[in-house]
Amino acid sequence: MHAFTELVELFEIHFAKRHFPEQPSTLYDPAEYILRLGGKRIRPVLCLMGNELFDDITQDAYHVASAVELFHNFSLIHDDIMDKAPLRRGKPTVHALHGEPTALLAGDVTLVAAYLELTKVVRHSKKIMQLFSKTAMEVCEGQQLDMDFEKLQDLTLEQYIHMISLKTSVLLAASLRLGAILGGAGEGNQQHLYEFGRKLGIAFQIQDDYLDAFGDPEKFGKQVGGDILANKKTFLMIHALQEASASDRTKLQSLLSSNPPDKVEQVLGIFRNCGVDAWARELKDQYLEGALNHLEDIAVISTRKKPLFQLAHYLIERDK
Amino acid sequence: MHAFTELVELFEIHFAKRHFPEQPSTLYDPAEYILRLGGKRIRPVLCLMGNELFDDITQDAYHVASAVELFHNFSLIHDDIMDKAPLRRGKPTVHALHGEPTALLAGDVTLVAAYLELTKVVRHSKKIMQLFSKTAMEVCEGQQLDMDFEKLQDLTLEQYIHMISLKTSVLLAASLRLGAILGGAGEGNQQHLYEFGRKLGIAFQIQDDYLDAFGDPEKFGKQVGGDILANKKTFLMIHALQEASASDRTKLQSLLSSNPPDKVEQVLGIFRNCGVDAWARELKDQYLEGALNHLEDIAVISTRKKPLFQLAHYLIERDK
Repeated sequence: MHAFTELVELFEIHFAKRHFPEQPSTLYDPAEYILRLGGKRIRPVLCLMGNELFDDITQDAYHVASAVELFHNFSLIHDDIMDKAPLRRGKPTVHALHGEPTALLAGDVTLVAAYLELTKVVRHSKKIMQLFSKTAMEVCEGQQLDMDFEKLQDLTLEQYIHMISLKTSVLLAASLRLGAILGGAGEGNQQHLYEFGRKLGIAFQIQDDYLDAFGDPEKFGKQVGGDILANKKTFLMIHALQEASASDRTKLQSLLSSNPPDKVEQVLGIFRNCGVDAWARELKDQYLEGALNHLEDIAVISTRKKPLFQLAHYLIERDK
Repeated sequence: MHAFTELVELFEIHFAKRHFPEQPSTLYDPAEYILRLGGKRIRPVLCLMGNELFDDITQDAYHVASAVELFHNFSLIHDDIMDKAPLRRGKPTVHALHGEPTALLAGDVTLVAAYLELTKVVRHSKKIMQLFSKTAMEVCEGQQLDMDFEKLQDLTLEQYIHMISLKTSVLLAASLRLGAILGGAGEGNQQHLYEFGRKLGIAFQIQDDYLDAFGDPEKFGKQVGGDILANKKTFLMIHALQEASASDRTKLQSLLSSNPPDKVEQVLGIFRNCGVDAWARELKDQYLEGALNHLEDIAVISTRKKPLFQLAHYLIERDK
């Protein structure tokens, strides 16, 4: 059994090669660039962990892990174009460096490269291809819903969780399940592991939204209040718009379309007035509990589950 | 054995269903839209013909044919974004109707849908996936080279043929070969069929460039001189820039960056001066001959080849 950090190292060794042909370099160097920007490699490692929960890690698992990481980078390249984002991991985005047409194509070849990795899979290849493709569709659906919801006035918490689940959680969940398929897991165990990943992903997003508003600036590493300044719909904002008093709601709505110098402080004040901070911590704990319950329900000996418990507690701070 | 037009009908019956889920309709209706704009369905039918050259058409061949048509539409959606094209098949492009972000995602899900069709393939699925993915990469390379060459001053005929081969011919060639794989063809026969398709595609492109300049406006159906007005690099333009007299070359270069009212007539005059028209007809015939020779070299009885010979003669006018 390997801990998360050991698996990151093992994956990096496998993934460090060049993934694309040399020519045309005008296409493939931009595609290669984003793969070398790093990132935490959570998704491919989840794939390896899903495999190792049930059996020794196979060569197939490295191919699927690579495919998952390639897919993730494909979606980053295209999302950055759609969001007109200038930076990714502190470096210029592919389209900022090479223009949108090349970035679009670089994303396309990265998706195709993911499928080329899958063609190397020897066992369970049909099931792998099907789950991978279903998940790929869902991630695209999530991105579309995210864009649709930007224009929507009244967004319910349920709609938001559905969107977040598609946009971020299903890929985490599927990464685990793809590994489990390779490890020979039965259907029931696969489903529990998938739900563990899906709920953990939602808990992580709630925490991310929470820390953006209430995090310690020194620990968080990002500008606190970034989501507020960008008028982003987050767990906190959606709940506040529903729960705030009539006067606070009016104030919040006007703050969403104006930029006073003390905008962050004013919004945080309203958040605190209606107890959004405590609510978010509670909701995060609920999803974490739900995730851990699914992990408990997987029928393998407890020592095998240890790395996944450790990962959950590493990703999510507990509040009780 | 079926003729081309019969196979178009058979394919349309198979392809007429909805390909995407209903929701989110903001994503999937735009993706569905372009599939219903029609088109000649040449690529999927080539896949069926490749199969039938060697054996009865299988259910797998319809899945692969659908995947090929979905891939083609994916590339149209993304190419139209890159080229900022307002129209496709006489109708507004996906991005013109729904904006670039949605069109980008609609293209992405169309590519994933192509792979989902491939997951349904029962026999030879690994070989199919590999050739399909390799071809997908090449088509993207062709599009990148096309954009790179727009900025290039001196383009050789060899470079242009390489680009055209990737951008358009390899998908025609691969469609035939995918079908041949399903029909149980041996490696040698597969290669001859692939080269038949690749050379036929180049002959078709030469003819397309030729008709744009020298075609009968009534028969051609498009504005004659469209490529000239758009300063497009075509077989004719590249050859003329190499072969024209010094004074004609200077004139041609200045016409490429100006728009006098008689631009088309002036360029056509220079084309005729250096015999580009006869040269293009000759080159087209060479590629057609080459294609037909590969078809001759396939080791199956001649009657099986008849639909492919008919198709070649239907697509390409002979000049001798």
